[in-house]
Order: sequence, then C-alpha cells, then structure tokens
Amino acid sequence: MKFYYDLFSQPSRTLYILLKINKVPAEFNPLSLRKTQHLTAKFKEINRFQKVPCIVDNDLKLSESIAILRYLDGKGVIDERWYPKELHLRARTDEYLAWHHNNTRLTLSLYFWQKWLHPLITGRNPDPKQLAETQKNMEKTLDSFENIWLENRKYLTGSEINAADVFAACEILQPMMAGYDPTRGRPNLGNWLQTVRSDLNPQFDEAHDIVMKISKASGIIQAQMKVVNFFRNLFRRKK
Amino acid sequence: MKFYYDLFSQPSRTLYILLKINKVPAEFNPLSLRKTQHLTAKFKEINRFQKVPCIVDNDLKLSESIAILRYLDGKGVIDERWYPKELHLRARTDEYLAWHHNNTRLTLSLYFWQKWLHPLITGRNPDPKQLAETQKNMEKTLDSFENIWLENRKYLTGSEINAADVFAACEILQPMMAGYDPTRGRPNLGNWLQTVRSDLNPQFDEAHDIVMKISKASGIIQAQMKVVNFFRNLFRRKK
Repeated sequence: MKFYYDLFSQPSRTLYILLKINKVPAEFNPLSLRKTQHLTAKFKEINRFQKVPCIVDNDLKLSESIAILRYLDGKGVIDERWYPKELHLRARTDEYLAWHHNNTRLTLSLYFWQKWLHPLITGRNPDPKQLAETQKNMEKTLDSFENIWLENRKYLTGSEINAADVFAACEILQPMMAGYDPTRGRPNLGNWLQTVRSDLNPQFDEAHDIVMKISKASGIIQAQMKVVNFFRNLFRRKK
Repeated sequence: MKFYYDLFSQPSRTLYILLKINKVPAEFNPLSLRKTQHLTAKFKEINRFQKVPCIVDNDLKLSESIAILRYLDGKGVIDERWYPKELHLRARTDEYLAWHHNNTRLTLSLYFWQKWLHPLITGRNPDPKQLAETQKNMEKTLDSFENIWLENRKYLTGSEINAADVFAACEILQPMMAGYDPTRGRPNLGNWLQTVRSDLNPQFDEAHDIVMKISKASGIIQAQMKVVNFFRNLFRRKK
C-alpha cells in the first residue's frame, strides 16, 4: 500500500499517526502542497481529486481520509480499538466522524485559512468582518466540543480513545499556528487534548513537528515583519 | 425505533426513502423546522444537537444521517445493496459519503440558503457578489459530479444504485426550488438523476412532494410579488 501525504495537512497527520501506531506496512510518500506537487498530471493519475491524503492499494485508488480509515478497518490492518466493532460504540464514532466534516474540519480550517495562510500567500490582510464571523463559527464548534461532545467524558465517544479523537486533535491544533488557543477557557478540551497527545506519542509530536514550530513563532509573527516576510516567502505560490 | 424528520430537509428525505424502501419497522415522527419544533427543550432531550433527521432506538439517541445509515446497516435492517459489504465497493461508497459533506451538501445547500431561504425569511435580497461566489462553488461541485464521479458510470460508485446515490439525489434537487437546474449542460447528471428517481419511486416522489411544488412555482416567484410574499409569510420566524 502506498500512502501520499503532506504533514502540513490535518487529515494527512491523522492517517500518518494511525498508520504508524498500527505498524501498517505502507510505503510513505510525502509530497509538498506548497510546491503544488498535488497539481501535477502525474499526481492526478494517483488521485483524481488532486488532494492529500490518499492511498493506492493494488488497483484501488482511494481518497478521503475517513473513507481510508474505514478501508483500513475493513482490511483488518488496524486494531479494533481505533474503529470499534460494537454496534453502539461504532454508531457514536460514526456520529462524530460525520459531524467532524462540517464542524471541526470546516470551521477551524476556514479560520486558519483566512487568518494565517491566505494573508501569507497574497500579502493582503483578512477582511475584519469576515474574520470575526469565521471566528464566531469556529468558537461555536469548540464550545459544542467542550459542552456536548466531551461533557463529562474522557474521550469523544466514551472512556476509550479511538479514531474520532485522532481526527479531532489533528484539526484542533491547526488554529494554534494562527495564534489562537482553542483550550483557553475550555478545561474539558484542554484535558482531552493533553491526554490524546500523550496517548498518541511519540507519533503525535512527530507528525506535528512543523505545526509546533509555527505555533511557537505565531506570537512573534504579529510583532515582527521580518518573520511575516519569512513565512510569506515560504508560502508564496510558484509562478 | 423512532425516526424524527422534516421532509423539507435533504438528509431527512434520504433516510425517509431508505427506511420506506427497506420496510424498516420505524415510528415516523415528522416535525416542523418552520415552526422551530427542533428548538424546544423537549426535542433537545431527543437530539442534543437539535437537528433533524435523528433516531431513537431503545437507549441509543443518534444524529447525523450518514451515521444513521451505517447503524441501520450494522443492525441488519437494510438490504446490503444500499451499503455494500464487498471491501472495494464499500470503500468507493465511503469515499463518496465523505466527499458529500463538504461538496454536494455544503455548496448546494449554501446556494439554496443564500438565494432562496434567507431572502424569504429576512425580506433582504442576497448580496450579488457573495451569491456569485456561492454559485461558482456549487457549479464546481456539480462539474466534479458530472465529470469525475459519474464519468462513464451509471451510478456514483459503479453499475448499481446504493445509498451514495440517494444522499446525492436528495441534495441535488434542493437548488431546483431556487430556480436553478443542475442538470442543464450536464447530460451524465441528468441521466443519472432520472434513473435514480425512477429506481426509488414511488418513495422518491412521495418524499419530494413539497420540493416539486416549490420548484414548479420558482419561475413564478421571480415575477410575482404575491407569491414571494406567500412564501415569505410561510417561512417567517416565530417571534
């Protein structure tokens, strides 16, 4: 099986962690979104949607990280704990994984895009009204996470970690790069994130190396134009 | 099992059709989003996210239509054809169902909201620049549908209908209410929609009764203020 990914992408990191932790015998093929390697004709042959992550397993070319998780489960190459077989627990996991798309994934990555990535690429500041609306939507998601999903649970679906937590944690670290701390004022989320990170280490920190470096620098970004320019050059699209 | 739904909601219609076609012994409990019946404290006890569709099966309260499909499959109450067990075919179905969330579902329902529902509720015309952007995103999705998903296939995942087609078809009819025809200039999509509708009838037309009525009227809406006011009153939020 061949795995194509960029650790700058949240679902790529999720699958990277799950593949490593489960010691799935895969060929790891990193590529660079920044260098637009996903937009080549060669990569279109690998994934018709030209996105990462994706896999090729014999004659099956599969995209969509959550579909890949289910395929790995169906093939029996990941431990049952990550995608439980028991009907009710699987239903609760599926409920989160469905909710994830238009909540955690959509609202947090949109904030990251508007606040951080788009300004670095274009050199234009975000529209304050639009950014405020996007931040409001992100915070609504994070509040549901704190008060509905975690409530008094240790993990998203109960007392054991599973893939839902991994998908969520990789997404929730993304706005930290833009200087936003999702755990502030959200003790359940803070405890959960710490536990999940610890459960998934060393693979979690390994996957998040670039995220951690940029998160640490994000306070500086706001103050020092030199740093802004460094990142702007880093993410400038190839002409 | 109790099923809560409003036929005005796309995923509600999808589950309605799948439950009826599979003769699942469920108690059908329609509720009215227009009358904000989903926002009551009583309904919050049924679904903590206060959305439809959702189910209650003994002590399991489950939301998210695609998670409910998987639960029904796990319980063995729907025919295998709707959610295939064969590994590759299931992977392809899961790939579509994951793609669905942030493509078909997100872009089409956002267009419907901006073009039709929000103006009716507020009495304000949509922002033309924002609507053009939303329409562009919807058309990108519909073009991927035409050229990538359907390409030379009869159904989304191959030569047989399954739940992916039902989820997609219920979503694709929604912008018709706003006077937009997604099949225009897209022959694969047009043929596919006709076939899916025919395969799913009479349940498909039964579920889409309100959609069809409004779609027929949508040409008139643009010309006659009387009709606009009729719908505006119909969707005015309760104070």
